[in-house]
Amino acid sequence: MPASPYQQLEEEFRRLHALRGALSLLRWDAAVMMPPGSAEVRGVQQAAIETECHALLCAPKVSRLIERAQAGASGLEDWQVANLREMRRERDHAIATPPSLIARLARATTRAEAAWVEARRAGTYSTLAPHLEEVLRLVRDKAALLGQHLNLAPYDALVDEFSPGITIAEIDGLFRALARRLPSLVREALELQAKRPPLPVTGKFAASKQKALAVDVMKAIGFPFNAGRLDESEHPFTEGGAGDLRVTTRFEPADPFAGLLGALHETGHAMYDLGLPQPWRDQPVGRDRGMALEESQSLMLEMVIGRSRGFVRYLKPLLEKHYGVSGPEWEVENVYRTLIQVRRGLIRVDADELTYPAHIMMRYELEKQIFAGDLKAADLAEAWNAAAAERLGQRPSNDMEGCLQDIHWAVGSFGYFPAYGIGALVAEQLAEQLKADREHLEDELAAGQFGGLLGWLRENVHSLGGKLPLQELVKQATGKPLSAAPALRYLEAKYLEPA
Amino acid sequence: MPASPYQQLEEEFRRLHALRGALSLLRWDAAVMMPPGSAEVRGVQQAAIETECHALLCAPKVSRLIERAQAGASGLEDWQVANLREMRRERDHAIATPPSLIARLARATTRAEAAWVEARRAGTYSTLAPHLEEVLRLVRDKAALLGQHLNLAPYDALVDEFSPGITIAEIDGLFRALARRLPSLVREALELQAKRPPLPVTGKFAASKQKALAVDVMKAIGFPFNAGRLDESEHPFTEGGAGDLRVTTRFEPADPFAGLLGALHETGHAMYDLGLPQPWRDQPVGRDRGMALEESQSLMLEMVIGRSRGFVRYLKPLLEKHYGVSGPEWEVENVYRTLIQVRRGLIRVDADELTYPAHIMMRYELEKQIFAGDLKAADLAEAWNAAAAERLGQRPSNDMEGCLQDIHWAVGSFGYFPAYGIGALVAEQLAEQLKADREHLEDELAAGQFGGLLGWLRENVHSLGGKLPLQELVKQATGKPLSAAPALRYLEAKYLEPA
Repeated sequence: MPASPYQQLEEEFRRLHALRGALSLLRWDAAVMMPPGSAEVRGVQQAAIETECHALLCAPKVSRLIERAQAGASGLEDWQVANLREMRRERDHAIATPPSLIARLARATTRAEAAWVEARRAGTYSTLAPHLEEVLRLVRDKAALLGQHLNLAPYDALVDEFSPGITIAEIDGLFRALARRLPSLVREALELQAKRPPLPVTGKFAASKQKALAVDVMKAIGFPFNAGRLDESEHPFTEGGAGDLRVTTRFEPADPFAGLLGALHETGHAMYDLGLPQPWRDQPVGRDRGMALEESQSLMLEMVIGRSRGFVRYLKPLLEKHYGVSGPEWEVENVYRTLIQVRRGLIRVDADELTYPAHIMMRYELEKQIFAGDLKAADLAEAWNAAAAERLGQRPSNDMEGCLQDIHWAVGSFGYFPAYGIGALVAEQLAEQLKADREHLEDELAAGQFGGLLGWLRENVHSLGGKLPLQELVKQATGKPLSAAPALRYLEAKYLEPA
Repeated sequence: MPASPYQQLEEEFRRLHALRGALSLLRWDAAVMMPPGSAEVRGVQQAAIETECHALLCAPKVSRLIERAQAGASGLEDWQVANLREMRRERDHAIATPPSLIARLARATTRAEAAWVEARRAGTYSTLAPHLEEVLRLVRDKAALLGQHLNLAPYDALVDEFSPGITIAEIDGLFRALARRLPSLVREALELQAKRPPLPVTGKFAASKQKALAVDVMKAIGFPFNAGRLDESEHPFTEGGAGDLRVTTRFEPADPFAGLLGALHETGHAMYDLGLPQPWRDQPVGRDRGMALEESQSLMLEMVIGRSRGFVRYLKPLLEKHYGVSGPEWEVENVYRTLIQVRRGLIRVDADELTYPAHIMMRYELEKQIFAGDLKAADLAEAWNAAAAERLGQRPSNDMEGCLQDIHWAVGSFGYFPAYGIGALVAEQLAEQLKADREHLEDELAAGQFGGLLGWLRENVHSLGGKLPLQELVKQATGKPLSAAPALRYLEAKYLEPA
């Protein structure tokens, strides 16, 4: 029997999956193993595979097969229907952007990324501005084309690429609700914290010891070291997927926790990837449901679990074993208070759970202004500083504390930031339901038993892959539509906890 | 001005080069970094890129462009003409083998490779035999198709894939000349050696110290660590190319030299890749001139240079520095005698310079019998043992010492072995000319000055890429056609040196 159009599509997307897996390994190597002088050669290799992937999605054959499979969709099962929908989605995104625009964007972002590094060295945004303007011009073109094709406003189309199915109107509503309460919540938490500051935790913690600790914790969580690795890199990240998971973190000798929490964050991504529906592993519907949900899974481990009393109880003997530490500052309550300390600051990646959303909302508003045409690259530094003064309560004294801190825009990733904010909301809403469903969760964590947690996440999130839109998934998992209310309840309970 | 057919071809082969570079990195990672459970996923990724490469070469567009470029070849420069010839060569090899046969061969060799590992564990060839028979059946098909397409006998077509442009008749002649003198030469060398055996070199040498020594030597030779790495793997190998060279070796704690010599061997490959003509780096004519010449460059460093008195004089203070050793056994003359010790044995990879060729000739004769149809996989172990008795003077007492020692046939690499033998002849013929051209070479080596050596190799070998056939290259470099005479002169001078 000859393969049906749908089956032929699966074969094409299986190939796409394999090529993307190779690409992912090339990125991992570039960040972890590659000698510094090899960036140019690697760039050419990555571009060659990206070109193949794009060509595969844009091939007339694939579009023909999609139409024919759609015509015969009544014979498909529900996972197959969802897979076909995701195939179409990927095709639509790819075909909207001509290869020539992608190539120009690749060149412009390569230059802008180098200019960003240079600008950070010089400490001033002005040298980046013209390069960013060029990137912006091309991203605007891309957004317009994508928007036309997807019947979305340009900025919505960019957001849709990273966080499929969530609209700007929905993000606006969620962020507004959050913004109503957060500033006062931060104030109250800081006041409370000032009354009972944790004892300082000091010392030097060798990277090898920090790594051994992280590996112990990852093993307990179930990270498969027979098909995965933990390494160090400049910024923590996860590449690969089930079958070969490559996680990195970064160890700071003076900070006993940051490397572990970075590893936990990435293990959250990795466990999501690992739990994706096995039979659909090499198909579009077997992928994660976008960056917001990815981020919810990493924040679940890093913030919700990693910064819980139960987890700290589990951690205490491991800190003693690996760091050989003891004393009052290493007691459970003090470590917990240390991990949930709130600090106002200007740098997003240093922000805590409570002050983090303001960083995201600020970038989101700037991106909306940019794509509404109200903000040019040349005026960005000043607009940033004004937004920081309003949202973060401080004005950056230089561009390093301001618009030079993130690389996202220089590399063309406009529309990505909302995923961080939505991801946190999703994590906190899932956490509320998880705790209701597993009332002994804290004790399980304290005993180093992560099976209940992972089982819940697998059942309610991971195993669904890309089958459901984000909001439906959240509603199905928690019985409630996605909203800011559970997040605010979570943050109030955690950060305004009575002594 | 629109791109000419020839220019369009260059663009296609540039893409091919980038894809192959990615593939090379995937292989390096699989051997050096990949967790053990990830082999299956990696296999799928490699197959996907290999399929793209094959499709690119077989695309009707490429064949059309080749024909059109050929028609306009009078307007091309000589490097372009050579490049077009190599493009055609690659296309011819690819198009002769249908993708379905490649896929079946990939599956059969995957099974046979696993069976080889299993058979080695069990210590008996019989479990491998049926799998090897299946591989052989498919390789015979491939050889027949290749042969038809290239107008060569089947086995010649296989050899041509690895060692382009050298015929079976030529190999026969070279090996016959070698075989006439070698057995007596080995006997005489062993007698001489028995009269003055070197003092034994013993001790434990930590891998970290061995690696630091190897890095020092590689730096002196000019290996570019800013665009390359040295790592450890089960078997030494080189992947990547100029811009990102990945070299591995293997350290044995009881052997102070094997890890270094392995690194030297691979550095020979790497320096060849590095010296290939820069403007042609991503084109077929900018590749190495086949495995025989590759092997000549690795043997030049490992055997000719690495086992010379000049090099040992350079090495002595480094051994003292890294190993903290001294005493009569570490004096130059004793280390040199240790490095050139001759030992009869049954295992190819343990063989020395003098006994090595017999191992190759034996495999070559067996391969010829196999493709003449006179030898079946089922009878291979017995045929091997008989050949070993004749060629090596010993009969294996088990299959581990016999036909299970090499992986080549299980993975389908028939026609590869001759490259090792021809490579040694080429190295030794080049060495004779090199020494004539640089009379102070030994003193340069002793001073750690490798610039003269590398300059000579670059001028006479590396910078020619794939422009000339192997024999022409050798003739141009040495003024003489390739023959066994210089090799025999080299071996006699080195191994029959009067006390």
